[in-house]
Amino acid sequence: MQQIGFVGLGNMGGPMALNLVKAGYHLTAYDVMPEAVHKLVAAGATAAKTVADAVSAAEIVITMLPGDTQVKQVYMGDKGVLNSGKKKTLLIDCSTISAQVAQDVAIAAATQGFDMIDAPVSGGTSGAASATLTFIIGGKNAVVERAKPVLEKMGKNFFHAGDHGAGQIAKICNNMLLAVLMIGTSEALNLGVAYGLDPKVISNIISKSSGRNWALEMYNPMPGVMDNVPSARQYSGGFGTGLMVKDLGLAEEAALAKKAPTPLGSLARQLYQLHDQAGNRSLDFSSIIQMIGKR
Amino acid sequence: MQQIGFVGLGNMGGPMALNLVKAGYHLTAYDVMPEAVHKLVAAGATAAKTVADAVSAAEIVITMLPGDTQVKQVYMGDKGVLNSGKKKTLLIDCSTISAQVAQDVAIAAATQGFDMIDAPVSGGTSGAASATLTFIIGGKNAVVERAKPVLEKMGKNFFHAGDHGAGQIAKICNNMLLAVLMIGTSEALNLGVAYGLDPKVISNIISKSSGRNWALEMYNPMPGVMDNVPSARQYSGGFGTGLMVKDLGLAEEAALAKKAPTPLGSLARQLYQLHDQAGNRSLDFSSIIQMIGKR
Amino acid sequence: MQQIGFVGLGNMGGPMALNLVKAGYHLTAYDVMPEAVHKLVAAGATAAKTVADAVSAAEIVITMLPGDTQVKQVYMGDKGVLNSGKKKTLLIDCSTISAQVAQDVAIAAATQGFDMIDAPVSGGTSGAASATLTFIIGGKNAVVERAKPVLEKMGKNFFHAGDHGAGQIAKICNNMLLAVLMIGTSEALNLGVAYGLDPKVISNIISKSSGRNWALEMYNPMPGVMDNVPSARQYSGGFGTGLMVKDLGLAEEAALAKKAPTPLGSLARQLYQLHDQAGNRSLDFSSIIQMIGKR
Amino acid sequence: MQQIGFVGLGNMGGPMALNLVKAGYHLTAYDVMPEAVHKLVAAGATAAKTVADAVSAAEIVITMLPGDTQVKQVYMGDKGVLNSGKKKTLLIDCSTISAQVAQDVAIAAATQGFDMIDAPVSGGTSGAASATLTFIIGGKNAVVERAKPVLEKMGKNFFHAGDHGAGQIAKICNNMLLAVLMIGTSEALNLGVAYGLDPKVISNIISKSSGRNWALEMYNPMPGVMDNVPSARQYSGGFGTGLMVKDLGLAEEAALAKKAPTPLGSLARQLYQLHDQAGNRSLDFSSIIQMIGKR
Repeated sequence: MQQIGFVGLGNMGGPMALNLVKAGYHLTAYDVMPEAVHKLVAAGATAAKTVADAVSAAEIVITMLPGDTQVKQVYMGDKGVLNSGKKKTLLIDCSTISAQVAQDVAIAAATQGFDMIDAPVSGGTSGAASATLTFIIGGKNAVVERAKPVLEKMGKNFFHAGDHGAGQIAKICNNMLLAVLMIGTSEALNLGVAYGLDPKVISNIISKSSGRNWALEMYNPMPGVMDNVPSARQYSGGFGTGLMVKDLGLAEEAALAKKAPTPLGSLARQLYQLHDQAGNRSLDFSSIIQMIGKR
Repeated sequence: MQQIGFVGLGNMGGPMALNLVKAGYHLTAYDVMPEAVHKLVAAGATAAKTVADAVSAAEIVITMLPGDTQVKQVYMGDKGVLNSGKKKTLLIDCSTISAQVAQDVAIAAATQGFDMIDAPVSGGTSGAASATLTFIIGGKNAVVERAKPVLEKMGKNFFHAGDHGAGQIAKICNNMLLAVLMIGTSEALNLGVAYGLDPKVISNIISKSSGRNWALEMYNPMPGVMDNVPSARQYSGGFGTGLMVKDLGLAEEAALAKKAPTPLGSLARQLYQLHDQAGNRSLDFSSIIQMIGKR
Repeated sequence: MQQIGFVGLGNMGGPMALNLVKAGYHLTAYDVMPEAVHKLVAAGATAAKTVADAVSAAEIVITMLPGDTQVKQVYMGDKGVLNSGKKKTLLIDCSTISAQVAQDVAIAAATQGFDMIDAPVSGGTSGAASATLTFIIGGKNAVVERAKPVLEKMGKNFFHAGDHGAGQIAKICNNMLLAVLMIGTSEALNLGVAYGLDPKVISNIISKSSGRNWALEMYNPMPGVMDNVPSARQYSGGFGTGLMVKDLGLAEEAALAKKAPTPLGSLARQLYQLHDQAGNRSLDFSSIIQMIGKR
Repeated sequence: MQQIGFVGLGNMGGPMALNLVKAGYHLTAYDVMPEAVHKLVAAGATAAKTVADAVSAAEIVITMLPGDTQVKQVYMGDKGVLNSGKKKTLLIDCSTISAQVAQDVAIAAATQGFDMIDAPVSGGTSGAASATLTFIIGGKNAVVERAKPVLEKMGKNFFHAGDHGAGQIAKICNNMLLAVLMIGTSEALNLGVAYGLDPKVISNIISKSSGRNWALEMYNPMPGVMDNVPSARQYSGGFGTGLMVKDLGLAEEAALAKKAPTPLGSLARQLYQLHDQAGNRSLDFSSIIQMIGKR
């Protein structure tokens, strides 16, 4: 089996790496937190003490990092992937970062003889654990094909969005739209309820009409309408408000760079920021209905 | 067959009344425009010279009018339905108006011994012609059941939203949310395209992800993604920007009356108003992407 | 001295009526709350048991009421001013209400031989007590002149905005803009402070630059910048958030009726509504900076 | 007299440099456009062929550049100011750029033994020509004092906002607020006019009330209210919409970096972006009233 160097073993990276170990890959693991590495070692991985250690012998390098700064450092730092890895190594960055940095890193990588894709995911920690993540991928066709076998051990759906950075862009376009759907749905349900309509009845009507959308149908924010969603458990679990604020920030940044207007996406960001700083950072993002509906 | 008095024979009311004549009802028709009445007479209806004429002998009265003012006048005017119709007559108002007026009229009707429902529709002129409209209904259960047979001659889907006015509320909640979906989708697609993504590819990715919604999947605003939608024909046909502005105004009014926050719905109304007054009133509402995407 | 009938003796109307009594007018006072009438009687006014009692012998009628509903009832109800007052009586409505109702009432009054103006005020309860209110007036020139002497006993500044209803419109235009200034100023100060700037320094710089405005210079929302403003006393006193929400609702309604776009004014209304329902209704409206600035 | 190296001789930098030549300074001038240099030489300056040429013998270096990229290159490039200038030289960057880059450059400069301030200006090309600019300055007290004599040859008002980058932050806080004032004022005036009020009358009322602000009083956007402002000359001259979009982008970026909410500032940016891309980039920013008021 192939040698994988895996850097970044947090809530997402940890279970993703674990699935690769289970699938039989020889995995060398690195994280700034030693405990995160210990867990992987207990499952059969080899510990690395530095990024360079993790990637120097790898045929495939996978990274799952918090943001732009870490990605730049891990790949382009003095002892980073581009300086320590073997040429021709396949580099897969699963972090959600700015398209700009994704492109910068991928171009630097290509220039130095690496194959690289950006492959941010959706599906959350439960998708990471159950290997059912969705990967949204940017990069060359041939490299995407090369990556498929290993990605299939971690996920279920794969979308090739375009060239370098396109995975990031497609992901934040989706998530910006999701924020808009969630707030819009919350407003519509709350308005109906303010006039005495039953939230199940109005949800059902809209779900069969032109207001139909994922937030309403699959992730209804109004308590009492659906089971097994965060609104049924006081908004615990799910996709945190703080993470939505991060993704909306990436979308704003991307839109700003291209002067692409996003009036609703921008206002959604502001509202999520207000919701976050009112003390709801760790609640699921569907809890925004509490800001809309408090009366 | 039953006697129907039909008032309001415009773009929507005309074909709806025609379907009732075809279904064998004895229909007496009134409109302020005599030509509209002539068309119905040619199809077998009886002409009425006044609202009173149209409704005095009817067992069922159906109205399809432009707004609050006309509904109040036709029902509550000196020679209006409530003064001219027989007690126990079934009154069906299909106009899209404010919930407040819908409730006021229905309560006045009930007080005087009539059975009334508010039954605004969606589906547009093509749905009216093909008798495939969706009716969103407010009123008592028994009255809704009484109305079903005649509604089934004009439409295909029937939702009972709640008591008097609930049909109006459910409809504007849906349409407010639809406006938000359409603008949000336009922003997301335009942002993706600004970064070089193929609009079909990004539409496909989002349609299988959490940004999925009716506007994206069934009515894509970006030219070149779908056939048989207004964006494929320079935004002709469909649901006009001016009508969306009207419905968003009703939603704003309803939200204002209950102090229900609608930050995205309100901003959507402002953007549609700007789009309307920039000369796009008669273009389909998906043309808002032209405001977002002009570069 | 002239006979005045005064209806509506709340936080504003009470001290206004008192100033007229002190100025020597013969005042007959009515309010739905008997205690409010008692206070005036103790100061020398005559008690009225009904609106009709208060106005039947008056040469001038002044009203200060909470909203549209009360104004319609007091003027146009069965035993209201128009039915109980003497023809030629000067009618002064100081309530802040919709322009539509102001016009409707004024036209009905004129038709029946009364002279009427709408004269909403600004200056708050302290302005009412000290007779330094600002009156923004709609109505005919001659009637405005006729009203001046009595208005001068209650206020200091008088603006004639135009014909019937113009006083209301000018007032809500001002107050909508004020809400925008207050939130915009809060955002700018908070942003500066987030970068370590001293709030006094940045306030001073902007107050001498093109961002200069009343909220910044006279009513700074950031604690520590000014004395003797609500931000210096935990946002107590001043102009309550709930009252701002009311005025922003009137502005929205007025804009909706004329299809006049107000994107910032509308968003300001949404933000004040969110602030209100988060438990801040009775705090001064400059407390909105707490929503913006919480970190 | 002191030796000044001046880099960036555009619409603003050109007249600023000219004022320094007139004041007797020995000025060596550089710009990427040779014609811009010629003009200065004709007035008595010395031409430089590179940035290094312009600054190598200077006691004071002044730069006026379009954006982040140019500032980084001119100061930190291989043959840039920090590598070519003499230690202890006073560096004054008058460009409007991001606070982040301003801080980065200033810190790099300090580390290498230079004295640096950021000193963005307001006042436009006419202020540059007449030496009446306002300078908003970030940097150490002693350095600001050292810079005063030369700044006084180019401007009239000087604000010391704080440490490195503070000049940029204070400027964009002001300009973000200005955009909000301008749109809010446009909405209020347009709403008043929609109800038949005279724009001069309502402007006068608000200018004496709590809606008072710089845009209304000094730069009224409604044609016919004031002379000698852009609205009196079809919005030619003044501060271009495109420049406002740039400044609002810097404000958004700064707010994003600190997670500081700016709901109205952000929406103002979106509206100016829409106005810009609708073909109004070179019109004065008060022309936004045309977007609001078209009917």
